[in-house]
Amino acid sequence: MAHDLAVSPLAPAHFPTLAPVAGVAFGMTYAGIRYKPGRNDLLVALFPEGATAAGVYTKSLTASPAVHWCRNAMKAAGGQTRALIVTAGNSTAGTGADGDGACRAIAEGLAAQLGCAPEAIQFSATGVIGEPFPAQTLIDALPAALESARPAAEPAVWEAAARAIMTTDTYPKGTTHTATIDGVAVTLSGFVKGSGMIQPNMATMLGYLFTDAKLPADVLDALLHEAVEKTFNCITVDGDTSTSDTVQIFATHRAGHAPVTDAADPRLADFRAKLYAACLELATLVVKDGEGAQKFITINVAGARSFEDARTLGLAIGNSPLVKTAIAGADANWGRIVMAVGKAGPLIDPNKLSVAFGGTVICRNGLRVEGYDETPVAEHLQGRNIVIDVNVGVGDASATVYTCDLTHGYISINGDYRS
Amino acid sequence: MAHDLAVSPLAPAHFPTLAPVAGVAFGMTYAGIRYKPGRNDLLVALFPEGATAAGVYTKSLTASPAVHWCRNAMKAAGGQTRALIVTAGNSTAGTGADGDGACRAIAEGLAAQLGCAPEAIQFSATGVIGEPFPAQTLIDALPAALESARPAAEPAVWEAAARAIMTTDTYPKGTTHTATIDGVAVTLSGFVKGSGMIQPNMATMLGYLFTDAKLPADVLDALLHEAVEKTFNCITVDGDTSTSDTVQIFATHRAGHAPVTDAADPRLADFRAKLYAACLELATLVVKDGEGAQKFITINVAGARSFEDARTLGLAIGNSPLVKTAIAGADANWGRIVMAVGKAGPLIDPNKLSVAFGGTVICRNGLRVEGYDETPVAEHLQGRNIVIDVNVGVGDASATVYTCDLTHGYISINGDYRS
Repeated sequence: MAHDLAVSPLAPAHFPTLAPVAGVAFGMTYAGIRYKPGRNDLLVALFPEGATAAGVYTKSLTASPAVHWCRNAMKAAGGQTRALIVTAGNSTAGTGADGDGACRAIAEGLAAQLGCAPEAIQFSATGVIGEPFPAQTLIDALPAALESARPAAEPAVWEAAARAIMTTDTYPKGTTHTATIDGVAVTLSGFVKGSGMIQPNMATMLGYLFTDAKLPADVLDALLHEAVEKTFNCITVDGDTSTSDTVQIFATHRAGHAPVTDAADPRLADFRAKLYAACLELATLVVKDGEGAQKFITINVAGARSFEDARTLGLAIGNSPLVKTAIAGADANWGRIVMAVGKAGPLIDPNKLSVAFGGTVICRNGLRVEGYDETPVAEHLQGRNIVIDVNVGVGDASATVYTCDLTHGYISINGDYRS
Repeated sequence: MAHDLAVSPLAPAHFPTLAPVAGVAFGMTYAGIRYKPGRNDLLVALFPEGATAAGVYTKSLTASPAVHWCRNAMKAAGGQTRALIVTAGNSTAGTGADGDGACRAIAEGLAAQLGCAPEAIQFSATGVIGEPFPAQTLIDALPAALESARPAAEPAVWEAAARAIMTTDTYPKGTTHTATIDGVAVTLSGFVKGSGMIQPNMATMLGYLFTDAKLPADVLDALLHEAVEKTFNCITVDGDTSTSDTVQIFATHRAGHAPVTDAADPRLADFRAKLYAACLELATLVVKDGEGAQKFITINVAGARSFEDARTLGLAIGNSPLVKTAIAGADANWGRIVMAVGKAGPLIDPNKLSVAFGGTVICRNGLRVEGYDETPVAEHLQGRNIVIDVNVGVGDASATVYTCDLTHGYISINGDYRS
């Protein structure tokens, strides 16, 4: 059922070399959840005692049992964690109480082998919705995954981990940063999967960040929520919010910096900035692997009354099938931007509206500019990276939304894949 | 710029024979607004003195100058009207004060020839957004349109009128009903255009109904709003709300029934029912001409807390690219329904959720039914008319939403058409 899809033309040339994170180990294997043999579909990440974690999850009212497990277990364990299990092929969503039982059985299965509480095990799943989850198949594969575990030190281990969680993704997606906390270097590396059913309202998007920083769970939680708001929560492929969206950060506490116990501590400035950069990179990598995507689109909305209004307007543009198909066709159809901001809901002033494509202003004060020449706009639209600037003329707030075009590829992928 | 598109496979076999409406005359011509010669692009409907009218318009904040003109003129004229002008090719949207001036000049142009106030002229336009509107071109064509005017008595006149307002439509769309008011027969005939940028939030949807009933403007207004709420406001092709959506009703007062001055008058029961039927027929004809549509989808949502919640849930399903592509691919992917109701916003109970395709229950109480056999569902999905029943388990309210599938045709049409 895995697609043999061509790699997105927007993919980076290489998977980056991810910096090691002391204390993290990755094991992986083929469990046979749904895919045919020939790829891993089960990843286990292991953390040392004392490791802390935080997560941001889908706001869907049909959130998967795995999402419920993560939320509840993280709370019960006070943000302490010993392992993360991620599986690809079946999301657990739409399986009700059976799914809840499957999640617990899996956590108990690994907890027994690690000698910890089941609540110290985080469990994420991605794939088909509504199929019974084969918990025993996964549990039976845990020993092989553990046996294969290696420290998150060699780049190849990172890339293999990023590949083990893919579904319709056409390439593995990773990011790496170093930050200093109180003068001490810490590393922050992570990966993400996602390609369709992407409008995270925190996406079938799973993202994981790992750091050796010595940060308690509540600090991680505050920092992660802040970073996600303007990164993962500002991307869309198709406006469809997954039942499994999860972004988590795990900290091993192996770095030698002094304790930091408050997210507002100024010593976190660099870590905060790097976490934002890492989240933005992972989020945009998802968009660049959007199903059928040929163009990456950055939508800057300014002049709104609030960040939320600006984001809503940006998402209305980014989710409009007419805008997305126009860009796929390299058509400088700015009238569709006018349509999208008009239907979005937030206040705008149509008589102050300005629209630019690739830096060329087409519309100012709601009117096409005098002597408008479409040539530079048409050239810009032939490229891979499209930038749209919109000012709606009613305030000072802004937001940037990231999306991709809507092409025949999206129709082909989704007319026959059961996700 | 008009497409030479194959007629939708969902089109009715014939344009219906529309019943004559006494007092209405249609004139039409080729004005050359945007399309190449070979089709009419200007329609003028003429009404007798004393005719009344009501309209429902787009809620877009970038509503076109033509929409503003209609609203304001109708109000200024106290619901009295003498003529309707409709043109295809340029919507007037995104043209600011110039567009407002164009609308007034056009109304003044026709008013001078009819000897009435400009406010007695209704003016609708559909087509590209953001191009200066060639008002003088239209005004110059008015005499030819008036000269060609014939009573709305022969079926051929109705069909020609319905064709004159088409843009990406692949077939003309009409409906006809007779109703009795206080024992006297009245006729109700009308037509609509629309195919893309369709999620009327009242669609580039223009719909017109004509009746000989003797009803004042405020009664027409109440009846029309009521009918539109569960018809035009329950359809979607692509979730994109046009800047021009308009549905209007015109009454010539030529029928011989006693005066009715209150929309709540029980003598309006049959007219009310027929108006609803007419609006539903026109609305679903738009969906059946949805850009690239191969399948007509009826989504019945029940068990919601309110009609508005049920409609929001139905639209979330109907606008989900993943649901629409699954149906295009005849894939019984009910998990995508679970996803869509989860992201929609209104309260649902995932543990009471039921989903049926073509009457076959797939999911009950949030779980796939025991011994589920996909065969009848797969057969249903091979057809042209798809029915999805969803119960979200939290209340007694329901709504029905009408949409179409998302196919390669939509991408092709919108990747190169400038609308």
